[in-house]
Amino acid sequence: MSNGNRKILGVIGGLGPFASAYFYDLINLHTQANSDQDHLDLVISSRASTPDRTGFIRGENPESPGPVMAEEAKKLQAYGAGVLAITCNTAHYFYNEVAAAVQVPVLNMIALTAQKAAHTGCKKLGLLATSGTVGTGLYQKTCADHGIECMAPDAAGQQALMEIIYDEIKAGRPADVEKFNALTDSLLNAGCQKFILGCTELSLLKKAGHTGAQAIDTMEVLAEAAITACGGTPIGFDWPPCGV
Amino acid sequence: MSNGNRKILGVIGGLGPFASAYFYDLINLHTQANSDQDHLDLVISSRASTPDRTGFIRGENPESPGPVMAEEAKKLQAYGAGVLAITCNTAHYFYNEVAAAVQVPVLNMIALTAQKAAHTGCKKLGLLATSGTVGTGLYQKTCADHGIECMAPDAAGQQALMEIIYDEIKAGRPADVEKFNALTDSLLNAGCQKFILGCTELSLLKKAGHTGAQAIDTMEVLAEAAITACGGTPIGFDWPPCGV
Repeated sequence: MSNGNRKILGVIGGLGPFASAYFYDLINLHTQANSDQDHLDLVISSRASTPDRTGFIRGENPESPGPVMAEEAKKLQAYGAGVLAITCNTAHYFYNEVAAAVQVPVLNMIALTAQKAAHTGCKKLGLLATSGTVGTGLYQKTCADHGIECMAPDAAGQQALMEIIYDEIKAGRPADVEKFNALTDSLLNAGCQKFILGCTELSLLKKAGHTGAQAIDTMEVLAEAAITACGGTPIGFDWPPCGV
Repeated sequence: MSNGNRKILGVIGGLGPFASAYFYDLINLHTQANSDQDHLDLVISSRASTPDRTGFIRGENPESPGPVMAEEAKKLQAYGAGVLAITCNTAHYFYNEVAAAVQVPVLNMIALTAQKAAHTGCKKLGLLATSGTVGTGLYQKTCADHGIECMAPDAAGQQALMEIIYDEIKAGRPADVEKFNALTDSLLNAGCQKFILGCTELSLLKKAGHTGAQAIDTMEVLAEAAITACGGTPIGFDWPPCGV
């Protein structure tokens, strides 16, 4: 069911669907390959109907996405997936529930990003993520374990970011790049050396060339780890060190 | 397992992986939606390791992709898919084998494209496809059923097209757009009113803006039909009529 000793990558996706499609592209673009058959085998469950993650975490939506994601994880494992990835940062709030549902490893985008940031020598990072992700404190705690301070925008900035993520990108509309740049400038001016694109919708801004050199794209971190975990050779990733 | 009365779309993909990722994008881009939850639920099996289709059809590769595809179809149906799509024209040589393996409908990209071409009033079409697809005669026969003549490039042109598909696009290298334009010019000069992008790798050239207004993109045809079949509302497709 795979290329030689390779593992099939199972993707808990659709959270949202544009970000998951870009993740699929990232896997293809960054796997060393000369023909179709050199590429990884994946099975992607793009379950867009999964309840909104931030809505549940903030208590605005009673239906938990956790059991839906755990069920998808079991189905992906049954399909033959040997490694799972979740292409949504906010959804990592339910990581333990998902990981407990299956025997195969589930990559943790938040832990992998904190490791990558530590590896590049960062000490203070901006966090651009949904209010759900910021509120869970997962990035802040995981980064602190690596000696990295993690700083989210102020309340007005966070509100502007939620508009970019929900009212613009997830709604299929163009993102307000100036509004985004004002947010990142503010974080960099406050002493952040880089900023985490801690929502996979924001990875789409990097794809479009709008985020600059200080962005750490969590979806690129996840894609690199997934290619390696499945037995492929990752190519073309660039992780410049943090300036002092 | 779906949004209301919607069906989950199962995709037999990875043939090749870049084209399947673009198909996923097309589904997302062309489904009327204001939030993640408005989008279709999909499950995509990107089985890049599936044996090469053209290689088998031309007798260069003894391993048939048919049983592999039929097995994926069964697994996608078991996952919950209510409609299946195959994102590779050449693989439609095995359409009957796949359709016979499952109870759910399998969209036929070749039949849908011939219907679409007939609907736009075309009488003579160029066919840009792999030598495998051209050799099966599937497009020629299906178009003839609609009173449409279907013309492939000459031997040298077909060779050039195979280089574009295999040595450039499938290998992750830039396509030679001048070589492609020479092919389409030759078909249009020979009286073709439009030309079929009859290989999903060529849809990537249209995505990049390199194919002009005379292209009928088989993957767009498939995406529109898939969105409708799953209960979504397709938006933003454009099928200009053939000039007389």
